[in-house]
Amino acid sequence: MGRSDPLDEPPEKQPEAGSSQVDRVSQSPPQSPPTSTSYNLFKTRSSKSLEKQIPWLSKQNGDAPPPKFETDEELPAGRFFDALQGPELEVLKWPFLLRVPANVFGVSIGLSAQSLLWAEIHDASSLSYLKHVPNGVLFALWSIGVFVHTVIFSAYALKCVFYFEAVRREFHHPVRVNYFFAPWVAAMLLALSTPKDIAKRLHPWLLGVFMGPVFALEVKIYGQWLFGGERRLSKVANPTTHLALTGNFVGSLLSHVVGWKEFATFLFAVGLAHYVVLFVTLYQRLPTNETLPKELHPVFFLFIAAPSIASEAWEMLAGSFDYPARLIHFVGLFLFISLVLVKIDFFFLLASNLASRFSIAWWAYTFPVAAMAMTANRYGLVVSSWLTDAMTSFFIFLSVAIVACVLVLSILHAVLWGTLLPNDMAIAITTHKKKKSHSQRVVKHQV
Amino acid sequence: MGRSDPLDEPPEKQPEAGSSQVDRVSQSPPQSPPTSTSYNLFKTRSSKSLEKQIPWLSKQNGDAPPPKFETDEELPAGRFFDALQGPELEVLKWPFLLRVPANVFGVSIGLSAQSLLWAEIHDASSLSYLKHVPNGVLFALWSIGVFVHTVIFSAYALKCVFYFEAVRREFHHPVRVNYFFAPWVAAMLLALSTPKDIAKRLHPWLLGVFMGPVFALEVKIYGQWLFGGERRLSKVANPTTHLALTGNFVGSLLSHVVGWKEFATFLFAVGLAHYVVLFVTLYQRLPTNETLPKELHPVFFLFIAAPSIASEAWEMLAGSFDYPARLIHFVGLFLFISLVLVKIDFFFLLASNLASRFSIAWWAYTFPVAAMAMTANRYGLVVSSWLTDAMTSFFIFLSVAIVACVLVLSILHAVLWGTLLPNDMAIAITTHKKKKSHSQRVVKHQV
Amino acid sequence: MGRSDPLDEPPEKQPEAGSSQVDRVSQSPPQSPPTSTSYNLFKTRSSKSLEKQIPWLSKQNGDAPPPKFETDEELPAGRFFDALQGPELEVLKWPFLLRVPANVFGVSIGLSAQSLLWAEIHDASSLSYLKHVPNGVLFALWSIGVFVHTVIFSAYALKCVFYFEAVRREFHHPVRVNYFFAPWVAAMLLALSTPKDIAKRLHPWLLGVFMGPVFALEVKIYGQWLFGGERRLSKVANPTTHLALTGNFVGSLLSHVVGWKEFATFLFAVGLAHYVVLFVTLYQRLPTNETLPKELHPVFFLFIAAPSIASEAWEMLAGSFDYPARLIHFVGLFLFISLVLVKIDFFFLLASNLASRFSIAWWAYTFPVAAMAMTANRYGLVVSSWLTDAMTSFFIFLSVAIVACVLVLSILHAVLWGTLLPNDMAIAITTHKKKKSHSQRVVKHQV
Repeated sequence: MGRSDPLDEPPEKQPEAGSSQVDRVSQSPPQSPPTSTSYNLFKTRSSKSLEKQIPWLSKQNGDAPPPKFETDEELPAGRFFDALQGPELEVLKWPFLLRVPANVFGVSIGLSAQSLLWAEIHDASSLSYLKHVPNGVLFALWSIGVFVHTVIFSAYALKCVFYFEAVRREFHHPVRVNYFFAPWVAAMLLALSTPKDIAKRLHPWLLGVFMGPVFALEVKIYGQWLFGGERRLSKVANPTTHLALTGNFVGSLLSHVVGWKEFATFLFAVGLAHYVVLFVTLYQRLPTNETLPKELHPVFFLFIAAPSIASEAWEMLAGSFDYPARLIHFVGLFLFISLVLVKIDFFFLLASNLASRFSIAWWAYTFPVAAMAMTANRYGLVVSSWLTDAMTSFFIFLSVAIVACVLVLSILHAVLWGTLLPNDMAIAITTHKKKKSHSQRVVKHQV
Repeated sequence: MGRSDPLDEPPEKQPEAGSSQVDRVSQSPPQSPPTSTSYNLFKTRSSKSLEKQIPWLSKQNGDAPPPKFETDEELPAGRFFDALQGPELEVLKWPFLLRVPANVFGVSIGLSAQSLLWAEIHDASSLSYLKHVPNGVLFALWSIGVFVHTVIFSAYALKCVFYFEAVRREFHHPVRVNYFFAPWVAAMLLALSTPKDIAKRLHPWLLGVFMGPVFALEVKIYGQWLFGGERRLSKVANPTTHLALTGNFVGSLLSHVVGWKEFATFLFAVGLAHYVVLFVTLYQRLPTNETLPKELHPVFFLFIAAPSIASEAWEMLAGSFDYPARLIHFVGLFLFISLVLVKIDFFFLLASNLASRFSIAWWAYTFPVAAMAMTANRYGLVVSSWLTDAMTSFFIFLSVAIVACVLVLSILHAVLWGTLLPNDMAIAITTHKKKKSHSQRVVKHQV
Repeated sequence: MGRSDPLDEPPEKQPEAGSSQVDRVSQSPPQSPPTSTSYNLFKTRSSKSLEKQIPWLSKQNGDAPPPKFETDEELPAGRFFDALQGPELEVLKWPFLLRVPANVFGVSIGLSAQSLLWAEIHDASSLSYLKHVPNGVLFALWSIGVFVHTVIFSAYALKCVFYFEAVRREFHHPVRVNYFFAPWVAAMLLALSTPKDIAKRLHPWLLGVFMGPVFALEVKIYGQWLFGGERRLSKVANPTTHLALTGNFVGSLLSHVVGWKEFATFLFAVGLAHYVVLFVTLYQRLPTNETLPKELHPVFFLFIAAPSIASEAWEMLAGSFDYPARLIHFVGLFLFISLVLVKIDFFFLLASNLASRFSIAWWAYTFPVAAMAMTANRYGLVVSSWLTDAMTSFFIFLSVAIVACVLVLSILHAVLWGTLLPNDMAIAITTHKKKKSHSQRVVKHQV
């Protein structure tokens, strides 16, 4: 799948890192002249030059000590976006790789889900006008998906190499961490939508390669929820957590396709158990759960993705779209209706100025609707009526429209305005874990 | 079903509204003479005379400002009943319509559930002595149910017209809001128990008319739990929330009867998903959940209603009383046993002075026990033994006894003592939403 | 089963109770000479000599008033073990019976689960080398189980008689209370593993005798979670709560074996409903839930016991190891993998100094792994492959190894070093319920 192919673009932008020339002396911000700044902080193994941080970090030593941001635990999700939006953040433009957030994998998932949707429709659909999707379309969609995912994956891999600290911060961010599941989910979706011309049958090693990291992350993250650590689910749960679960259901699908039925059941069981936990937790909206910032509202759509994929995964296991599959599908459908009706004014607001409000987070709209379209299609194969046909058509149309819209906006923002990947505030204000921050403060005082 | 027929009784009582003559000047309560009071506050579109409120509201401007009651969010359920029980509240008797609380629909549900119970027993029962219920009994029960529901519905409809503010307050009350589902649930129960003489087969439009409002409320209320707004489930969850879910299961039954099997599955799925969420939330008794006041303890019985109806709804879908149906039924049965044993002293206390402790909330006993009797009857049809027969008989007897007892007490309180519908404290102390209360305070200061 | 046979050992140790000679005058701790101390406080019906308490209790009147420990409600689980570890607690050795904590029943459960495991393997196993377990081994395991359980049960029964106050305190301890289910669970496991030579078929009265107390406790404890009382699940939930649920699933198994299929379904339903609630609650780790102290980390293994037994119970009901059984089994398997990987450093730490860190709580390792081995064996009968065979072998080996290790350590601690049952801190610092403590404080002031 060529995920580790070298990438052309980012490397030549990376050298910019050390060339930015803005800083601020901590004690007297207004009158002191700017000194040399580097992005060493985010660079791999850069523990020496902690004083020479990017401005807003060294500023912390001065007049505005933010002690409440010291640990991950105390950081409410909302604060990542509200705080520290001062001019310093806007003035500088960070190096390219530092501006590649984990949620850029939303693009991969969106495109690969679209690819799978059309592959499925090609195989079976109750709608005659959809049955005859040309092979060329499938191949084109799949190729685009593979190409884009490879590019993004390579860019993020380079970020891991050059700015490990930034990646580590994303890993400790309650929203971002869930996007670490995304590259593997996207890869599995692409594997599932592989055109028949390329591979007649998928080999189990694909499952191993793609599901392995998901499982490892899962054990790490679910384990922390349950058995200790600072990530209490009652604090970190948010709609993006669905991504972590979707991995199980997509993995279950792939596992079934490669012929490992029992492992498919295992992955489904793990996914379902955690889905119940997450569903209840998100519905309760515990007082410890912060409200999502407006910018992240698109991720609410991820509520729809998990049950839709789960429904299809169960259909695979059970061999038919039986009652459990329907119950899960209908939960997803209700969530869709509820979400659209409750947030209807939000969508009108979005539509009124699409371009200016766009962010990479919007890709969260694409995958869930594609998943919904897939399940609606499969449900329509079993229960055929004008209503199910209408629903299938509606969701397929909506899915294509959203992907097209978001893709065009992304290209415009990337190519025309260069605003697709702004400075990544989220990792600017997260700081280190408790123990590390203690030792670092000691270092600071010694220097 | 004639729900919108004009009602004879309330209109002539409504004119009392402006005739009450008790007030209090805000700054000096003891020596100032009472001035004219009106119920304008609760009247539809009454924004001008905010100073001339009912006493305890205008008192808020004076010596006892209750800032903590300003928003719905901060209002713990218990405070509605503890606070503001001063002499002013007792002295005045509000106009009739203002004294009709939303939970009066508990009467409708209780009677219609009884009607459905006997209709079901008439159709099929494992007990020979119950099989031969005369058609007359069915018809009488159904007619009484329809009549009472029409009367109550009309009264509440008039309240909506004349005192919209009071209705709005009930809608923002964490307990009361759930009774907004009740009229439609009662109507569906009545539709399900329609005697065969009147209608051989129910028409789908019944489902549309009765389920439509339930679904709209559901989207509104569940949506607020999930996607934002001030009603966090972790705060507002209480046993009456079961009413909102029961609507789904009763709707699923009706949907099945009118022939919409897939929609029945959809409603069941939505109900089940939310039931799991509610069940877990209520079991956890989060610190944010206030303990119910003693007066509302009867609503604990609603715990039994949801699984009982759900069990029957699943039986309809699955076509037999299979394991899922039994599991759900047994959960209801355990909750019944547990509730009776845990609250046994409470029931003895109640029995010791039935008449004086009675309130309209007691109707919450009737529906759950009738639902339990229905499910026990259906279970007894499949698993026939002396124990299941005894259980069926027990629950039917209990259901009839409770309805009879509560009905007699209601009639006595209504006709003899005139104490069935006392002043509605709950809506007296809830105030407006944050934004509205701000604008109103501005108005107050200007006047 | 001879549970009420008189026990030889404890009675002669009990007279030690009054002979301890350390006390402290409340107002001036340092200079006052020690006066006579008795364990009257813990003795049944000892309300007179409240002043002459064991030191750390009378100390409460003096310089260190711990008002926050006054009610059960306010007692976070962790504080039972952190606080009050002063020299007084170490110096004295309490009478034997007072040092028998409820969690000593973990030994019974561990041995009886081992007995059942081998009985099941004897009946059916996919592994040829395990099929031929000699009858003698089964009989020996079962006899040891019955003997040890009888001894422990008698000891605890005597504790109930002589030190009812201590038992009452354990009953109000959020961890200990769950071990009150353990004697009956152990008895049911032993009943299930009764060798065929002794009883061809189990009689339903066994179920009544053993399940009765479990059900009564359940109604009491689950009822308090749901309908009121001070034990909110959001506060008291911890891994040992699984023991309370396991009772249902083991009871369901036994109920099935004695031929009460419907009651087996009932118990399964109750267990499953509460398992979902507990699973979600523990996964959320609400802020109100205290982290378990290190010493209790072995009880994390109880996470694995409930789904494993539940899976087997469902297999019995459904008649085959179908999808629900597999889903539940796989949840248990995932929890096992997750627990081992997340706590891997903890296990290495344990292994490094087994003997010194050992406590009776370690028996919590035995039952869950045995249950896992049972389910793995049953799963392997249906899905036979090298992997399932390897898993079965692994879990059986692990189960035997753990039991052997813990048994040897227990014997060494008991016989050689006499440190198996140290003073029971947990009951030393729990005090009475609110109302009782009020009346007692009044008594104190009068004296």
